[in-house]
Amino acid sequence: MNTFGDTIKITLFGESHGEALGIVLDGIPAGMKIDFSDIDFELTKRRPKSIYSTSRSESDDYQILSGMYDGKTTGAALTFVIPNKNTQSKDYDELRFLPRPSHADYSAYVKYNGFNDPRGGGIFSGRLTALLVIAGAISKQILNRRNIHVASHIYALGLVSDRGFDLADIPETSLIQLQKLDFPVLDSSIEEKMKAEILKTKEDEDSVGGIVETCVLNLPAGIGDPLFGSLESYLSSLLFSVPSVKGVEFGAGFAISKMKGSQANDQYTMVHNEIKTKTNHNGGILGGITTSMPVVVRVAIKPTPSIGKKQTTVDLRTNKERVLEIKGRHDPAIVNRVVHVINAVVYFGILDFLSTNEKR
Amino acid sequence: MNTFGDTIKITLFGESHGEALGIVLDGIPAGMKIDFSDIDFELTKRRPKSIYSTSRSESDDYQILSGMYDGKTTGAALTFVIPNKNTQSKDYDELRFLPRPSHADYSAYVKYNGFNDPRGGGIFSGRLTALLVIAGAISKQILNRRNIHVASHIYALGLVSDRGFDLADIPETSLIQLQKLDFPVLDSSIEEKMKAEILKTKEDEDSVGGIVETCVLNLPAGIGDPLFGSLESYLSSLLFSVPSVKGVEFGAGFAISKMKGSQANDQYTMVHNEIKTKTNHNGGILGGITTSMPVVVRVAIKPTPSIGKKQTTVDLRTNKERVLEIKGRHDPAIVNRVVHVINAVVYFGILDFLSTNEKR
Amino acid sequence: MNTFGDTIKITLFGESHGEALGIVLDGIPAGMKIDFSDIDFELTKRRPKSIYSTSRSESDDYQILSGMYDGKTTGAALTFVIPNKNTQSKDYDELRFLPRPSHADYSAYVKYNGFNDPRGGGIFSGRLTALLVIAGAISKQILNRRNIHVASHIYALGLVSDRGFDLADIPETSLIQLQKLDFPVLDSSIEEKMKAEILKTKEDEDSVGGIVETCVLNLPAGIGDPLFGSLESYLSSLLFSVPSVKGVEFGAGFAISKMKGSQANDQYTMVHNEIKTKTNHNGGILGGITTSMPVVVRVAIKPTPSIGKKQTTVDLRTNKERVLEIKGRHDPAIVNRVVHVINAVVYFGILDFLSTNEKR
Amino acid sequence: MNTFGDTIKITLFGESHGEALGIVLDGIPAGMKIDFSDIDFELTKRRPKSIYSTSRSESDDYQILSGMYDGKTTGAALTFVIPNKNTQSKDYDELRFLPRPSHADYSAYVKYNGFNDPRGGGIFSGRLTALLVIAGAISKQILNRRNIHVASHIYALGLVSDRGFDLADIPETSLIQLQKLDFPVLDSSIEEKMKAEILKTKEDEDSVGGIVETCVLNLPAGIGDPLFGSLESYLSSLLFSVPSVKGVEFGAGFAISKMKGSQANDQYTMVHNEIKTKTNHNGGILGGITTSMPVVVRVAIKPTPSIGKKQTTVDLRTNKERVLEIKGRHDPAIVNRVVHVINAVVYFGILDFLSTNEKR
Repeated sequence: MNTFGDTIKITLFGESHGEALGIVLDGIPAGMKIDFSDIDFELTKRRPKSIYSTSRSESDDYQILSGMYDGKTTGAALTFVIPNKNTQSKDYDELRFLPRPSHADYSAYVKYNGFNDPRGGGIFSGRLTALLVIAGAISKQILNRRNIHVASHIYALGLVSDRGFDLADIPETSLIQLQKLDFPVLDSSIEEKMKAEILKTKEDEDSVGGIVETCVLNLPAGIGDPLFGSLESYLSSLLFSVPSVKGVEFGAGFAISKMKGSQANDQYTMVHNEIKTKTNHNGGILGGITTSMPVVVRVAIKPTPSIGKKQTTVDLRTNKERVLEIKGRHDPAIVNRVVHVINAVVYFGILDFLSTNEKR
Repeated sequence: MNTFGDTIKITLFGESHGEALGIVLDGIPAGMKIDFSDIDFELTKRRPKSIYSTSRSESDDYQILSGMYDGKTTGAALTFVIPNKNTQSKDYDELRFLPRPSHADYSAYVKYNGFNDPRGGGIFSGRLTALLVIAGAISKQILNRRNIHVASHIYALGLVSDRGFDLADIPETSLIQLQKLDFPVLDSSIEEKMKAEILKTKEDEDSVGGIVETCVLNLPAGIGDPLFGSLESYLSSLLFSVPSVKGVEFGAGFAISKMKGSQANDQYTMVHNEIKTKTNHNGGILGGITTSMPVVVRVAIKPTPSIGKKQTTVDLRTNKERVLEIKGRHDPAIVNRVVHVINAVVYFGILDFLSTNEKR
Repeated sequence: MNTFGDTIKITLFGESHGEALGIVLDGIPAGMKIDFSDIDFELTKRRPKSIYSTSRSESDDYQILSGMYDGKTTGAALTFVIPNKNTQSKDYDELRFLPRPSHADYSAYVKYNGFNDPRGGGIFSGRLTALLVIAGAISKQILNRRNIHVASHIYALGLVSDRGFDLADIPETSLIQLQKLDFPVLDSSIEEKMKAEILKTKEDEDSVGGIVETCVLNLPAGIGDPLFGSLESYLSSLLFSVPSVKGVEFGAGFAISKMKGSQANDQYTMVHNEIKTKTNHNGGILGGITTSMPVVVRVAIKPTPSIGKKQTTVDLRTNKERVLEIKGRHDPAIVNRVVHVINAVVYFGILDFLSTNEKR
Repeated sequence: MNTFGDTIKITLFGESHGEALGIVLDGIPAGMKIDFSDIDFELTKRRPKSIYSTSRSESDDYQILSGMYDGKTTGAALTFVIPNKNTQSKDYDELRFLPRPSHADYSAYVKYNGFNDPRGGGIFSGRLTALLVIAGAISKQILNRRNIHVASHIYALGLVSDRGFDLADIPETSLIQLQKLDFPVLDSSIEEKMKAEILKTKEDEDSVGGIVETCVLNLPAGIGDPLFGSLESYLSSLLFSVPSVKGVEFGAGFAISKMKGSQANDQYTMVHNEIKTKTNHNGGILGGITTSMPVVVRVAIKPTPSIGKKQTTVDLRTNKERVLEIKGRHDPAIVNRVVHVINAVVYFGILDFLSTNEKR
């Protein structure tokens, strides 16, 4: 459904081409002065721009409908609304019966008996992820005060790979630096290769996927629950809510399945009078509970479903195959935008999870 | 926490060496005759046995404490309890201060201020997965009547790989066959290689991880919700509750990140008068909602943390490094046991998710 | 928090004098044509008007931000927003430190450390109940098609009492008639007495409470769960969310405590080939589950806290007692408005509860 | 369903005549030494005994299946099981088709299609309230350390009434004294009158209802949430889960509906340097949030449905009316037993609610 969270809840609404998108945040502490320039900064990173994204113009100008008084949060539900300025109806009558491959068009058509809003993907549109960025930006402001940091980079864009985090040793300064980047990579020399790959894909009227890697630093040990309350369960559930995510792994992830126990096991040691592990193949989580090592998660993003090439679909009125050509301008890659959404989602998730678990 | 599910809920309790383990299932329809021999069959598959697993003897003899009358379910909470027969206290006083690498010992110690049950991992023990197998076996009996089938195989054991499912074409008969296997693989020639790998690992006093691949067949289209109610969110949350899971991916999973959109997109076609896709890189789920194609999920399992080799840990009383030798007999591999747990968990998850979503 | 419901969820936001109020309804079936004139009709009944309520002018003109396409619901979150037209800031700087007796001013001040929106009660304002009326009006349209009806009357206004429902025999036609009344009473001769009581109370600069009685007709038997899932638990939880409610009772309610079992027990009989009870002291619910008899609930409403008379309070800055005079025009009674809110809330609750329980 | 709670969850299972009853408590802090003699003390108070209750012999000897190690709680799920010693099957084949008036027999029969356990009411039996007493006794031990006390008395037994709490002035010592009483009343002279009423009712083969009044002392101000998270919503939901409850009211409750605002409003004053109210008609809760005044709740209990007198029912096999005679020995009154269950339930509810809200 459209609500998520335990101690801090978010509720989303809106469609790509409807009147407006919105998010209700409940549980944000009272008396907080929100840094709106930081929200704008985060929204700008996600927004399509330049030759590396779609050339559609999107605006994320929001209004605050509730939860603020006298420049501070009131503790009541905090509501942001982003009006959709560009909602003229193209002719969707035809398109709604021609499901686009790898979009939610067909599964939604069945679920909603054809009544779902077909314009621009409706509720399934990536446009709603702007709302998650707002939630993440506010969560970030709360967590940073406790010196907890989240940062993400484009671990892979198609076949072009960045180096990964050194799981057991991630300097705080490099994370803070990473947060500032519009096109975040650890190995700066890889940026041009990735951008070249995007341009080439665009020329081919095709699209390309990728992998996002995210790190959470300075979470205390002992946060989480065994069984169904694990941090991995919580974060994966949230991450798979982001459109286009097809895989989630923690620490060494799928690669750990190829290791021997003697390689994979994270042995304990003392570092600056604190108990740490020499390696961090478990990504900072054991038994669902944090160990104080960096929490590292990797997320697989599928290629943008909308491509210029001709594709086969089935006309839902006649059950006959049809050739589909998707007009318009599309993102040849979304991983460079989704990376900021993933980062926001992890910020929100960590804030909510920590708030709930610290009092257990 | 220890309860999971929406329309059908499971609640787990118990520790590895406590009095008993138990599971409460709430929401199982009234009037159902349970096939106990099938529960026993599933429990037997999970139970350690033969030279390929630990030689500890475990018994899964259960008692039913509630929810049955006159040989049928009553609709009230159905409770299974497995008494622990072997609960004599070894001396854990020493071991509780020497956290075993990659086990939950340390994170639990911090969370519970040292009061957690240290015997055999306590609540974090894989022993509790027997309870999940019971939940899965009951769910299976309900779903099979609707012709919905779940089957799993050992996709990889360390570096030895089985072939994967043909995502777009998975015959029902082969799934039903797979369910019968104690050591399930698709390519029968790979079984001996995997078993040889286990034996070799055992000789090395080491352990090995693996990957489980699971398929759900005959789910109708249109099941699931956008945003936070996606089938992927639901299943991943449940799967990460199984001890040792470090990654979850659907369809092509992480591999989809390397594809172009023109390769990855699942184009529509008509098959026997039904709308299907030619490929199934999305694993039967689009926008969080089923498409009627097979749902395919892959799960990364870490090597058994308990190994015979010497390891370094830190003594929690002194904060000094110590060499740790874990005595006793351990599973050199658990993927051949976890495969049955994953299968059970998916059976339960699909039953609950379907029950909840069909009424939407 | 601000979200309620299982299969159909409502999320509220907004404050009395903020930018806007809003409600997000998630789970409303797709393809529904909403009768907006009926929503307006219900909102009008709740709105203050005439000499029997406050003379403040409130407008409930709403906008729909999401969930509609082509005149029908899409199945996605349906969002209504009511902008607040009259949000000029009076001087609340003084008032926020002088908590009004029986309002939430003091408890909210402590909870939110003084940062809550003090204007007009903020989130605690009865103004938010307009949102519940919208949810109820939509639920009504869905339930009425199934011939399930909810109607309420002013059972008591201060010391002036209407007659109660004949619990075991409530004609559908009289319920439908009741729904149309602005000032709903069963005994039409009592209306003038109640209105006279309101006018007299107004002259005294005082206020008066009352009791609302609500009936749900044609609910099938077998809906509900034992233990924590009872219909009584569900409805009472929802009803106590309505501002000013201090008591909830079902069937004979508190009066049943004075009866003997031989009087109170509802004996079974056949009526038109259906199993019914001769009396209905249990209000259509046994063991938390419906019996097919009318569900009857009564709700105690406290007198409007805002009165013109002088009262004592404590200045939160100085901890000194102060005399408080509340200026402005206030409702001398709210039971004649709350009656419509209670009715709406029960409509919503029954729809959600029925949707969830029918598939158990 | 059978699980309740947010930060501390309880899960119940079992039927009156099944193998065993049980409760799983999740979220109890680790390292707690439980006072079992106090649990026994509370169970004894609830247990039927003497001439004033049923003469059936019930034993509440429990076993602990999980969650304890070395004499202390582990932080994992804590499980109590009470085996049913007396489960021989009388012939229920006849009785299951003759629903007893005011019991859940008929509504359960419809819900479960006749498969519910008919023996002694199955899951609807008051026997399960012994489990709630255990949860309450543990919660009490945690809350008493914080000086938070809950106590209850028999406010009315049929037409015989005790005096009520002085809402605004309830001495802690009198509450502590009340907790010790087996037959708790404020006015000790009323005890004999109530007991005489019970004996007389017994002679008549009839039963009698009553009202329980419960007080919570020393809750801090500011606990609770507006809208759906109110303390009244939470407690009422829990209280209506107790069998036989038909009404719940806070503070002055239904009587407040008869007051003028000038009488009902609780005006503020300073008492020993703390902000208090002169009266407490709101029962310590405003806007769903505590005020630091005593929380007072009253609960209406219906007469025991099982009576010796002849009653009319309908045979579910033939749909013909039948005369029913309920054999055996029954409680002529249950309010003197339910009073201890209500007290336990409020203890548990306050602990869970406080634990959840303090971290907001």
